[in-house]
Amino acid sequence: MKKVNIAVVGVGAVGEEMLRVLNERNFPIGNLRVLARSAREIKVDNKTYQVEVVSEESFKEIDIALFAGTEGEKGAAVTFAPSAVSKGAVVIDNGADFRMKSDVPLVVPEVNPEDIKNHKGIISNPNCSTIQMVVALAPIYKAAGLKRIVVASYQAVSGAGRGGVRQLESELKNEQVKEKAFVANIARNVIPQIGGFAQDDYTSEEWKMVKETHKILHDDSILISATCVRVPVVTGHSEAVYIETKENITCEKVKDILSKSDGIKFIDMPERNFPIPADCQGKDEVFVGRVRKDPFVKNGLWLWVVADNLRKGAATNAIQIAECVISS
Amino acid sequence: MKKVNIAVVGVGAVGEEMLRVLNERNFPIGNLRVLARSAREIKVDNKTYQVEVVSEESFKEIDIALFAGTEGEKGAAVTFAPSAVSKGAVVIDNGADFRMKSDVPLVVPEVNPEDIKNHKGIISNPNCSTIQMVVALAPIYKAAGLKRIVVASYQAVSGAGRGGVRQLESELKNEQVKEKAFVANIARNVIPQIGGFAQDDYTSEEWKMVKETHKILHDDSILISATCVRVPVVTGHSEAVYIETKENITCEKVKDILSKSDGIKFIDMPERNFPIPADCQGKDEVFVGRVRKDPFVKNGLWLWVVADNLRKGAATNAIQIAECVISS
Repeated sequence: MKKVNIAVVGVGAVGEEMLRVLNERNFPIGNLRVLARSAREIKVDNKTYQVEVVSEESFKEIDIALFAGTEGEKGAAVTFAPSAVSKGAVVIDNGADFRMKSDVPLVVPEVNPEDIKNHKGIISNPNCSTIQMVVALAPIYKAAGLKRIVVASYQAVSGAGRGGVRQLESELKNEQVKEKAFVANIARNVIPQIGGFAQDDYTSEEWKMVKETHKILHDDSILISATCVRVPVVTGHSEAVYIETKENITCEKVKDILSKSDGIKFIDMPERNFPIPADCQGKDEVFVGRVRKDPFVKNGLWLWVVADNLRKGAATNAIQIAECVISS
Repeated sequence: MKKVNIAVVGVGAVGEEMLRVLNERNFPIGNLRVLARSAREIKVDNKTYQVEVVSEESFKEIDIALFAGTEGEKGAAVTFAPSAVSKGAVVIDNGADFRMKSDVPLVVPEVNPEDIKNHKGIISNPNCSTIQMVVALAPIYKAAGLKRIVVASYQAVSGAGRGGVRQLESELKNEQVKEKAFVANIARNVIPQIGGFAQDDYTSEEWKMVKETHKILHDDSILISATCVRVPVVTGHSEAVYIETKENITCEKVKDILSKSDGIKFIDMPERNFPIPADCQGKDEVFVGRVRKDPFVKNGLWLWVVADNLRKGAATNAIQIAECVISS
């Protein structure tokens, strides 16, 4: 296979996971450039990487530039993606800045890989909480349609980057936390705010689940409403997903479809018919369990969906997109 | 005020909280008997109590017997409530054993105090997760009706009694846990199972939210569906409650109604428009915030509801019932 020159931009929690996943999947790397705001040496799983300062010149001869994205502020992709594209690179951006642009495909490879071919240089990786939900729902959507989604999330602190993990672990040790990643203590607490407040008092994270799902499924007619909540878990987002399908579908059929779907690990053990965050850490699949019918509402159905937010929710999905790009 | 002879049966997390709340509220206690399976001396807030072994004879001359209830197994009320009633006591039971019996009122004093007068000796205290939800929803139900409720909970480990707290705190200290209260580790994890699995793969806790809400509101027509989840919080259950009202009601009207309702603390601060478990600890109110409309579904509305599961969710509600009993 032809070797591909790769740049990874950002070496926070997601950037580091990107380096790990590239390595694990034996991605056919020619040259690898690791770029960030400051030069340094980092180690990931005992492999040493030289981090160079990112500049417009960094993307010369790069085939694919993976931008790790940042929480809260605008990602490096805003500054550097245009010059990377002008130098011939395909940009795959984990940040939120380009996701809703009409000429930027927003891709989950198990769901809408065909959208990749329409890219104009930039392909966006969806938000972590969206990715795992659409992986679980797309097979049901294909089989029975989706009228509505009501979702409540249980999101890990690593979704806020290393600062989020630092805050939780410091609080659990009763240590002073210098820079707070959250608006309140997160140890032994839950916080129903992820991102800032936006239209209709939804948070930015809640809007992402609505708008990104619409874009990925190419269907704005699905009624989606979300409450996104931070919980004191380090890695692994969970979601209690309530749906109403358009057509009737039995629980057994849903379980059967999910069990056979790419990228899904369906959990139905005798001792436990659901996944927990501890199951998914370091894994690439979306874990699904507790599929059950609403006894009172026609076509109403619950699912419990768990995934590693740094892997399938970010790094793995981006690198799967890269794999699609080079194989197309 | 006439003094009342009280028995508190059970000195676990809820029984202890009952003693604390009786004391705090200056309940007009004549004689107080503290009863449990074994005799011992306990201290609650520097007050010493002599615990006697519970027997059928313990209820002689007792006016009100408060049963703290137990998790998982049948409560002491199953064994002792009939003899307590036959000796003239009114039993207020926090356990689940009598709640759905047709001749046992299930009471939240802010919602259905009038049901108390129908008691035949036993009055049941609803489940913690139900109490806080109906306190928040009853004023909306009265104003605009309720067509449906879809709720996902974030429930504290103290809901499983002292064993639940012990498991979380031991795991956080990396200590060996001898008796596990939960089916998996709870530190840095979430577990979507509370109680055993029952009809339609709902857990017993999820059915409680359906059936108890129907009974308290005297309305089986409300379509209720729940996912109940344990989270690594010590005290304070949270709930993401999605409702559809029958009639249209504005967000402002809902906020106004909730702000003026008994037993509710409506949170709408500039820095944070929602409560968190840390806010409610040791408090008797139900805390509500994040009231917002579903932009896509007519009459769809979210609320975020938090309460101290040992106080309003158990001890306080039981003692409020006792206060109603003695004032009627």
